[in-house]
Amino acid sequence: MTGGPTFIQSRDNAFVKDLRRLAQDSGAYRRQGRVWLEGDHLCRAALERGVQPAIGVYAESAWPAWEHEWGSVAARNVVLADALWADVSGLESPARMGFVVPAPEAPVLQSGLPTVVLDRLQDAGNVGSILRSASAFGFRQVAALKGTAGLWSPKVLRAGMGAHFALHLVEGLAVDDIDALALPLLATSSHSGDLLHRARLPWPCGWILGHEGQGVSEALQQRATHLIRIAQPGGEESLNVGAAAAICLHASAAHADSAGHG
Amino acid sequence: MTGGPTFIQSRDNAFVKDLRRLAQDSGAYRRQGRVWLEGDHLCRAALERGVQPAIGVYAESAWPAWEHEWGSVAARNVVLADALWADVSGLESPARMGFVVPAPEAPVLQSGLPTVVLDRLQDAGNVGSILRSASAFGFRQVAALKGTAGLWSPKVLRAGMGAHFALHLVEGLAVDDIDALALPLLATSSHSGDLLHRARLPWPCGWILGHEGQGVSEALQQRATHLIRIAQPGGEESLNVGAAAAICLHASAAHADSAGHG
Repeated sequence: MTGGPTFIQSRDNAFVKDLRRLAQDSGAYRRQGRVWLEGDHLCRAALERGVQPAIGVYAESAWPAWEHEWGSVAARNVVLADALWADVSGLESPARMGFVVPAPEAPVLQSGLPTVVLDRLQDAGNVGSILRSASAFGFRQVAALKGTAGLWSPKVLRAGMGAHFALHLVEGLAVDDIDALALPLLATSSHSGDLLHRARLPWPCGWILGHEGQGVSEALQQRATHLIRIAQPGGEESLNVGAAAAICLHASAAHADSAGHG
Repeated sequence: MTGGPTFIQSRDNAFVKDLRRLAQDSGAYRRQGRVWLEGDHLCRAALERGVQPAIGVYAESAWPAWEHEWGSVAARNVVLADALWADVSGLESPARMGFVVPAPEAPVLQSGLPTVVLDRLQDAGNVGSILRSASAFGFRQVAALKGTAGLWSPKVLRAGMGAHFALHLVEGLAVDDIDALALPLLATSSHSGDLLHRARLPWPCGWILGHEGQGVSEALQQRATHLIRIAQPGGEESLNVGAAAAICLHASAAHADSAGHG
């Protein structure tokens, strides 16, 4: 980095306008080709995985505390007047800093990697939680079909707590694209298939997780090589999809461990 | 029910003011001694479990569609002008109806019931998801310590999707109160204890789930009879607590099933 940070006070500054959209609009990262990582936890996770921030953004009152540690990691730094920061961020993040990083270039689906397929999941919190679970349980890739919440949107990033940077993420896929995984595909079903806790699970594999209301689409269910049921002795009609995902992905990891090829 | 519904158009109507608080303020149910169930899914779940609604509330344009089915289930009905409904609800629920029901009288912790203990969980979505998982996996009681998100707040109710009505819910508890459960208590730990997928799990039991940032408090950990680790071969630092809860509660249910006392 050369020179000190740029200080901005005006709401009408072009960078501030773009940043506000990036921080508050879930689709803005696609239009701008860059992603907003807010808060030190997320930024640290990105740095640890070798992400190069293009711009470091700091609230004026927070800059002195960060300058020493992170003043040189971004290509340039911008310091926003505190009122402006509050206007951009809309969060209550005590760190009051963030990085703008380049959006990943359209990545290609990789064959054979343990994968989680997201079929039109709507809720950013669910998607983020599933990314965390995928990463925790040794899945390496997440493949999101068209209609799924944007993986790099601010809400999904926040809920993902850094898992984004440990995964190969591909989005905007069509159903046919999934064939390229060349993996056994597992899908949950509420009324047929083997009970998860008694089933033999293949590894590596792809787990398909479906839309919060409609479940996995017919076309994807037909591609599934295994239908799996989660026993629900209490008789509730359905688990939250993030909860179901955690149970399934953990079961696969435990199976891989027992079979000695984790 | 006697007579037709009361029609309200004024924002200043006292009932409307109370209802707005009930629908938007997470602590209002405690002060008002009543709970707002919004949307037909939640209302149906309550009716199926024998809950008696005190007041049925409908948007003006929605009332004709509901009058036949539910016009007689509440002690009285209130119809709000559509603009007023939009102001109260703040949701995009297509059903545009809800019930006001009496808040449960301060329930007492029951000994021996399979129980989930919530130790100061903050996020309403997590708490609701855990209630769903608890109910699905045969847990009968949820015991929330002081500092946990209000179980009957609108956001927790929404995320719970009706699980509230299948569970015995107790809140505002102190750590010492938990002793009355008289159950083996299990807590997750990130660095010690048996691996969940290899552990022998007792049934019935109580699972303790901790604060999103701080985990289970020291005082509660000391009460745990079993510390359990969830293997995370991918090496992420921690799962979302709703995801961890789902995995643990499912494992207990699967164990109870295998042991033949589910």
